[in-house]
Amino acid sequence: MATEIPLVTAVEREWATAPARAADIGRWDVTTDVLIAGYGGAGVCAAIEAAEAGADVLALECTGAGGGTTITSGGQLYIGGGSALQKELGYEDSPEEMLKYLLALCGPAADEEKCRFYCERSPAHYDWLVEHGVPFQAAFFPVELGTIPPGTEGLMYTGSELGYPYREMAKPAPRGHTALHPGNNAGLVLMGRLLEAAEKVGVRVAYEAHAERVVAQADRRVVGMVATIDGETKTIRARRGVILTTGGFIHDRGMLERFAPRLMKCSPPLGNNTEDGSGIRMGMGAGGAAIRMNEGSIVMPYAPPRDLLRGIFFNRRGQRFVAEDLYQYQLGEAVMMREVGVAYLLLDAGIAPENSMGAQVCAEGTLEEIERALGIPETGLVHTVEQYNRFADKGEDPLFHKHPNWIRPLDRLPYQALDLSTDRCAYPTFTLGGLWTKPSGEVLDVEGHPIKGLYAAGRTTSGFPAAGYNSGMAVADCTFFGRIAGRTAAAL
Amino acid sequence: MATEIPLVTAVEREWATAPARAADIGRWDVTTDVLIAGYGGAGVCAAIEAAEAGADVLALECTGAGGGTTITSGGQLYIGGGSALQKELGYEDSPEEMLKYLLALCGPAADEEKCRFYCERSPAHYDWLVEHGVPFQAAFFPVELGTIPPGTEGLMYTGSELGYPYREMAKPAPRGHTALHPGNNAGLVLMGRLLEAAEKVGVRVAYEAHAERVVAQADRRVVGMVATIDGETKTIRARRGVILTTGGFIHDRGMLERFAPRLMKCSPPLGNNTEDGSGIRMGMGAGGAAIRMNEGSIVMPYAPPRDLLRGIFFNRRGQRFVAEDLYQYQLGEAVMMREVGVAYLLLDAGIAPENSMGAQVCAEGTLEEIERALGIPETGLVHTVEQYNRFADKGEDPLFHKHPNWIRPLDRLPYQALDLSTDRCAYPTFTLGGLWTKPSGEVLDVEGHPIKGLYAAGRTTSGFPAAGYNSGMAVADCTFFGRIAGRTAAAL
Repeated sequence: MATEIPLVTAVEREWATAPARAADIGRWDVTTDVLIAGYGGAGVCAAIEAAEAGADVLALECTGAGGGTTITSGGQLYIGGGSALQKELGYEDSPEEMLKYLLALCGPAADEEKCRFYCERSPAHYDWLVEHGVPFQAAFFPVELGTIPPGTEGLMYTGSELGYPYREMAKPAPRGHTALHPGNNAGLVLMGRLLEAAEKVGVRVAYEAHAERVVAQADRRVVGMVATIDGETKTIRARRGVILTTGGFIHDRGMLERFAPRLMKCSPPLGNNTEDGSGIRMGMGAGGAAIRMNEGSIVMPYAPPRDLLRGIFFNRRGQRFVAEDLYQYQLGEAVMMREVGVAYLLLDAGIAPENSMGAQVCAEGTLEEIERALGIPETGLVHTVEQYNRFADKGEDPLFHKHPNWIRPLDRLPYQALDLSTDRCAYPTFTLGGLWTKPSGEVLDVEGHPIKGLYAAGRTTSGFPAAGYNSGMAVADCTFFGRIAGRTAAAL
Repeated sequence: MATEIPLVTAVEREWATAPARAADIGRWDVTTDVLIAGYGGAGVCAAIEAAEAGADVLALECTGAGGGTTITSGGQLYIGGGSALQKELGYEDSPEEMLKYLLALCGPAADEEKCRFYCERSPAHYDWLVEHGVPFQAAFFPVELGTIPPGTEGLMYTGSELGYPYREMAKPAPRGHTALHPGNNAGLVLMGRLLEAAEKVGVRVAYEAHAERVVAQADRRVVGMVATIDGETKTIRARRGVILTTGGFIHDRGMLERFAPRLMKCSPPLGNNTEDGSGIRMGMGAGGAAIRMNEGSIVMPYAPPRDLLRGIFFNRRGQRFVAEDLYQYQLGEAVMMREVGVAYLLLDAGIAPENSMGAQVCAEGTLEEIERALGIPETGLVHTVEQYNRFADKGEDPLFHKHPNWIRPLDRLPYQALDLSTDRCAYPTFTLGGLWTKPSGEVLDVEGHPIKGLYAAGRTTSGFPAAGYNSGMAVADCTFFGRIAGRTAAAL
C-alpha cells in the first residue's frame, strides 16, 4: 500500500536519463497504479481520467503547486469540429474541415493520425471540460478585434483560418475556446477547475517531488520511477504505468543546442523554467524515440491593435514577404527562418504605430527617405507600395491574398516604419518536438514499437501541432492527450 | 580466433533496433578487435586506421562489393586550412578562415567542436589520402567554369566561398580536392585506392553480410553484433569496439516521415539504396542520441553552364529571392523552404537556356508577357528587372550581392523563363542528421555520455556539415571521421 509522501523545499537538480534497473530496486517505498511526472495541463487531465477509471493515481510535481505552464497561459483551447459552443453561437464546423486546416497548417511534417484522432473527438473534449467544471461564456469575440478578448467571451478566431491559402483549403470556423475569465489569464480558471476536479476524484500529489528516472525491467517494460522527495531518493512502483508530462525543453540550453539550435536565436522562452526536457530525456533513456525535435513555435505578437494589419511588412530589400493577417506563429517563422530576423512594418499616417511588441518607429517620411534610412536598394520599397496600392484600390492583394478587410491603399504621408526585427523585439518561443507517441499516449521506439508501461503527453511529446501552431493548440493538445494517456494507462 | 565467413546472396531485410543482450549470447561465432558495419567511405577509412593501429578488423558489407555511396560520388573532398595541394597551387588558406566559413554556412546549428577539429587536421587528411595512394593532379579548375572539371584538375571551388556574405566573413579559398579522374566519377579512383589500401593492411570484409543489431552488456557497453551471413544468424564479438558506418536514411520512408518529413517533398534520393538508416537505428537502440535529424542537403544543380549565373531567379511574385551564384545547396534550400518549391530563372536573349537540370522554358517574350503567362502580379517582374539592370549598369547587386563576374544588365529581347520548380526538375536530396558523436567517433547518449564500445562516422552521424552543405563535405566528413573512429576504437 502507498505510504505518505513528505514534501521537500529544495532539491539539487541532477537529472539522469538511463533508467534504473528493476532488478536493482531493493524495495519499493511507494506503490500506485498510475504514476504521473509533472502536474500541469497534461498531468492533471491524465490524473483525472486515470482516477475516474478506478486507478490509484500519484502525481509528482517538482514545484510547490500544480498547474505547470498551462496555469500561466491564456487558457485558450483550440477546439472544433462542431463543439457545443460553436453550435450555440451559430458557427458551423466539422472534424473534416478542422483536419483539412490542421494538415495545411503543419505541412509535410503533420502527424495526420494524431490530428485526425483529435479532430474527431474535439467536440467531446469541450463537453468533458465543461463537465469537469470549466466555465465558458457563450459569446463570440469578433475577429476584427483580435484573438484575446479583454472581456470574458468564450469563442474566437485564434489562427490563420481566414488567412490565405487556408480559407480556400478548409471552411473557416472560430476554434479558440477560452475559459471564462477577463483578459489574458484564463489559464487560472481552466487549471483551477481541473485541479479541483482531480482532488475530488482522489488524485494524490507530491509537491517539490523530482522525478529522476524511470525504472525498467530487462524486457524494457517500465514499472516505476525513482524520485527525490524531501531530499531522499524514493522508489515508486507503478502497477499500471508511468506517464511523462513534464513539458518541453525550451529552458534547457544543452538540448536546444543539440536538437533545436535555431530556436536559440529567439527569446524569450515561453513556459515555466521547469520545462527543461527532463521527461523527454527519461523517455529516450527508456528507449523512446524523440521526433520533430527541431520544431518550435516562434511567435510575433505585433497586433493588437488590429489596425496594424492594414500596414505591410517588408524586408531588407523592401519586398513584402508574408501576409500581414496570418497567425503570429506564421509571421514569426517567416521573419526568423526566411528573413534572417530582419523585418519592418510600413504604416501610413492613417495608422497609429502603437503595438503590442513595443516595436519602435525606426524611419519616417517619404518612401524614398525610408529606403535611404534603412539602406534599402533604391525603388525597392517605392515599387512595393506602388504595386500594393494599385491592387488595394480594387480591394485585392494578389501577392499574399491578405483578407480584403485589411486592405486599403497606403497613401497618407508621412509614412512610418516599425522595426520588428528579432533583436529589437520579443519573440516568445517554445519547443514542439518530443517523444513519439501514439494517439493512445504509448511512447514508441524508433521502429514504432511501444515501450510497455510508458506513456507521455503534452509538450513532452510531439503532439497534434507537430509542426505548425495557433493559439490554444498547446493547451488543447496537453489536456486532450493527457486525458487519453491517463485512460490508456489506467486500463492496463 | 576468427572463423572464415561465407557469403550469402539474398537476405530478408529485417532490421531491429534493440540490442541483443550479451548475457543471451551462447557462443560467439566470430571474434575480432574492431567490427565495422558498412564498407563505404567511412567504413574503409575506419578499417585502415584500425588495422594500422594493430587491430584485427572485420567489416560487414551488405552488398556484394565495397565502396558504398562514396564510390558512386564525384570523389570530391572538402579539404582546406592550407593543404599541400592548395599551397602548391598558390592558394592561401588557414584552419581559422576555413572554420569561419563553416560556421557561417551552418548557422546556429553548426557543430563547432567538430568543425574546429576537422579544420585543424584537414591539411593532414589530404596528406594521409595521398600516402594511401589517392592521386590528385596539381592543377586548378577555374571558378568561372564550374565546380566539376570535365578533365582531371585536382583543386576547385565547390561552395559559396566567393558568394555573399561568405566572401566578407572569411577569406575565400578553393577547397574542393578531387581525385585524379576525368569527369564526375572520381569516387571510383578515391575508393578504389582506399579499398586497395585496406586490403594491404589485412582488413577482412564479409560481403552480403547484414548487420542486424549490436550486442550490449547490462552496463550498456557494446561488445559485438548479430549479423545475418549466408542466411544464418552469426554472433560476432568485437573486443575493442563496433563502428557504425552504414550511411544515412534517405531511402527509409518511415524514418523520413518521422524525422525529416520536409525532405520527402524532394527527389531523387541521392545515395545507394542501402542508406536506410539501419546504423542510426541500431545506435539509438543502444542508447545513442540522434540529432539534427531534420537536416538534409537539397541540391539545385542548375549550372553549368556557368553563363546561367548571369540570369536572375524569381518567385511567384516576380521577386528575386537568392543570389544566383551561391552553392546549389543554398539554392535548393531557398527554393524548397522559402518559396514552397516554385522558382524561375530569367534569361535574356544573350544567354542560352540549356542547363544541367533539364529545366524547360515555360514563358518567353517581353517581361509583361512573362508576367501574364506565369500569373505574376503586374509590374512584379518588370520592376525586379528594372531595378536589377539599373544597379547592374554599375556592376552592383545591392539586393543579394552576386559576384560582379556574373552581373550585366538583362536587356536583350526576347526574355525567357526557365521553370526550376521542384515538381518539374530533379533536386537530389540526402540526409545530414544522425547519431550524436564526439569528434573521436564515440556515440553519445542524450546527456552527452559515451556509449562504451560504440562508434560511428559518416552519414550515420551528424557530421561537420551538420546543417549546411557544399560539394565534397560528405566525402571529407566520411573519410576523415571514419579514420578517427577507427583509431579511437583500435586504441582501446
